[in-house]
Amino acid sequence: MLAINKSDTTFLYRQVIDLISENIETGTLGPGDRLPSLRKMSQSAGVSVPTVRQAYIELERQRRIESRPQSGFYVRHAQCNDLVHPAPSSAGEPVCLNCRPLMERVYDGINHPDLVPLGIANPCMARPAAKALHRAMKRVMSRAEERSLGYATTLGEATLRRQIAYHYLDTVGAQVEPEHIAITNGGQEALLLSLQAVASAGDVIAVETPTYHGLLELIDALGMLAVEVETCPEEGVTLCELRRTLELYPVKACMFSTTLSNPLGVTMPECDRRKLVAMLEEFDTVLIEDDVYGDLRFDGIRPIPAQFLSKTARIITCGSFSKTAAPGYRIGWLVTDHFMKQITRLKRAYSCSSGLLQQLTLADFLASGNYTRHLKALRPVLKRNAERMSAMVAEHFPAETRTSKPVGGSVLWLELPGNVDTEELFDASISADISIAPGQIFSPSNRYKNFLRLSFGHPWSERTESAIRWLGNRVTEIH
Amino acid sequence: MLAINKSDTTFLYRQVIDLISENIETGTLGPGDRLPSLRKMSQSAGVSVPTVRQAYIELERQRRIESRPQSGFYVRHAQCNDLVHPAPSSAGEPVCLNCRPLMERVYDGINHPDLVPLGIANPCMARPAAKALHRAMKRVMSRAEERSLGYATTLGEATLRRQIAYHYLDTVGAQVEPEHIAITNGGQEALLLSLQAVASAGDVIAVETPTYHGLLELIDALGMLAVEVETCPEEGVTLCELRRTLELYPVKACMFSTTLSNPLGVTMPECDRRKLVAMLEEFDTVLIEDDVYGDLRFDGIRPIPAQFLSKTARIITCGSFSKTAAPGYRIGWLVTDHFMKQITRLKRAYSCSSGLLQQLTLADFLASGNYTRHLKALRPVLKRNAERMSAMVAEHFPAETRTSKPVGGSVLWLELPGNVDTEELFDASISADISIAPGQIFSPSNRYKNFLRLSFGHPWSERTESAIRWLGNRVTEIH
Repeated sequence: MLAINKSDTTFLYRQVIDLISENIETGTLGPGDRLPSLRKMSQSAGVSVPTVRQAYIELERQRRIESRPQSGFYVRHAQCNDLVHPAPSSAGEPVCLNCRPLMERVYDGINHPDLVPLGIANPCMARPAAKALHRAMKRVMSRAEERSLGYATTLGEATLRRQIAYHYLDTVGAQVEPEHIAITNGGQEALLLSLQAVASAGDVIAVETPTYHGLLELIDALGMLAVEVETCPEEGVTLCELRRTLELYPVKACMFSTTLSNPLGVTMPECDRRKLVAMLEEFDTVLIEDDVYGDLRFDGIRPIPAQFLSKTARIITCGSFSKTAAPGYRIGWLVTDHFMKQITRLKRAYSCSSGLLQQLTLADFLASGNYTRHLKALRPVLKRNAERMSAMVAEHFPAETRTSKPVGGSVLWLELPGNVDTEELFDASISADISIAPGQIFSPSNRYKNFLRLSFGHPWSERTESAIRWLGNRVTEIH
Repeated sequence: MLAINKSDTTFLYRQVIDLISENIETGTLGPGDRLPSLRKMSQSAGVSVPTVRQAYIELERQRRIESRPQSGFYVRHAQCNDLVHPAPSSAGEPVCLNCRPLMERVYDGINHPDLVPLGIANPCMARPAAKALHRAMKRVMSRAEERSLGYATTLGEATLRRQIAYHYLDTVGAQVEPEHIAITNGGQEALLLSLQAVASAGDVIAVETPTYHGLLELIDALGMLAVEVETCPEEGVTLCELRRTLELYPVKACMFSTTLSNPLGVTMPECDRRKLVAMLEEFDTVLIEDDVYGDLRFDGIRPIPAQFLSKTARIITCGSFSKTAAPGYRIGWLVTDHFMKQITRLKRAYSCSSGLLQQLTLADFLASGNYTRHLKALRPVLKRNAERMSAMVAEHFPAETRTSKPVGGSVLWLELPGNVDTEELFDASISADISIAPGQIFSPSNRYKNFLRLSFGHPWSERTESAIRWLGNRVTEIH
């Protein structure tokens, strides 16, 4: 058994976590076994009772143990397809991107159209919209023949901004001024403008872990540092960890996905959103809220963005039509009533304005109700795909594999047995004409070596199924 | 008469220029008067003969004086519609943007669709292309119904990159690898990616003076400094001034427009381009070559971008379809064989990729020969507009007004009498439903107070003519 080493700089409660985890993994503590009581553990490990409690709570959140009322803590029964637990945390410090070469290889690899695209998160199921969008675009072209070739205004066409404002009113009952919306070149430019408006090179940005790789690449490209905040697969960013991070580091902005985060697929409960907003104000920091999957919950319920829970907190919410309707249109947006002056200046300097024809087409698509109809048709398809993929993973991957339980979006997050390196799996899968997203690109600090993200957003086919079977067999072989 | 002050830090030859200019402006030296000989001036001013010669050559380039063989230098006869001369130079030092508030006001002002748009440089004459482009887009939509909504690849569609490469082969005989072309969100994003790939906040960037305001806003947004290099209305950047600048300051990149610069409309002769390229290598600096007006010379001759004059010099050339075909498509490109790795990473981080539908449409537009046909139709319209506008300025503006003599593009640059403040004129013109571009936004150091840029790229109409008359009357009143 490992001993607690008080001269080690690692937090003591982390050492307790490692110690228990080690015992579970070696089988010393089996499923259903009772853990030492808080007091007993405190005595045997030579640490305080609150430290042990903190460790047990974290282990419970990781779903390795469970508390039974008036009885104590027990090792949970391992379940295939259980919610994945985050990798044990190193004491997160602000870091530069560590996986740039891998990221480059992944992008190079997945760009080939002949691959089974399990590595790309855009839902091509969005394409049922094709006919309606094409019809709308043709209408726009004949209605405003010459005008439709001209420049859009810097912050975007008033018609589309009004439609987006109305969509928020319709789905979450929030009142947005169209003047507080800026149209961008996809969600990615919305993130870029937001980040540039509030932070500079050298600044520290807090991110979830795991988090969207495009966000890490952006932070890296702007010369900023990322600090990872532990993220629970059931509730999103762990707020006590966030507090610790905000106390330790001068965090300029938090970039969190509050609904259907990528890759975990977690949605932060509204009570936590309210606490998050209060914490932003307490530490005078900014939230850049990535909400590009907000419309894609299978149950059709749209959680309210943190944006609308406070008038005073400084929040920029980023949305996009890339994950729901037309990735190639490159139309996203941001909502804020705090930084519009800087954002206007940056938008003009970086790209003048966004494509006019696509803006007018999407405005028509929303106004006609076709967008809502399209989402209604899309969600059950995504849900069915998620179920099929989860079932196939349970069948073909090793029993120790754990996965997220998607309630929306288009991605499944897998934790494979510890000895599987998904970077190697990536290389092998590319040779087999399958793209996957290896876990390491979702963290700046090389975590998630044995994790994997699979996309179920593409039309389901026999090829999809053989690809999942191939991956399962391959992982089983390595394991 | 001013005296030369040797303890002044201003270059002595600049003081000689100021001294002669002052005498011309006060009338002491009238049109046709002979200037003191080099030796005489050298004695009376107490400076060397080469210093006087340098001053006289500069004054000649400014078209204030002229040399007559075996006779000496004479004050030129003032000519209305003569080529405009640059404002007398301050010893240019790297500076931050000084005109941000004015620029904001100009952008706010000119965005109203009801104004006569003399302040906006995009040629709406480009719109004869509308029918052909719309047809091409409809073809693309029916050919690749679902595919056309998806993401384009990071650097852009192969078909469009091949067509752009072919366009260079066709127009300037240059061989470009499609892999050395990246598709961007308009020319502005091409400038952004280029600048970010080669320089960082705090770096010094050399620009022409006057120069395109969007470039100054970009340099400002990235926290860089601009140093102005004197630019001659007949030959572009003055190479001896550029050398001086490169010797004095650690210039990371030069951002020059080699063909039909905005607002001067000047095209750098090929021999100067070659010297420029040699100088880049000598000083190990980068050229970001703004070539967005390259296709718009009235005579249809396309000067060869500096890009193709050297295999080794580090040059990124930026092009766009915004000034020639469809501003609202937001499709531009850059060409380079030096920084593609950084540019790929930045493009992905900043905006993922550019609009797919527009890329496929433009590829079709180029491949069908429609782009070339469109340019052939567009150039004479622009030329006719330039002639009409120049003639009306000569008729309605004060006699001292000087203007550029456009040989392409869509803008006219005016120097008004010294007491006219075009910032005030801007405010007055907006009230009269006319937009103009005041001179100060074309320099980071508040030069060009009495300068003005007018666009002739929009369809000519009775409203255009009344607007020019109104401006002429207003300037005459102020004067």
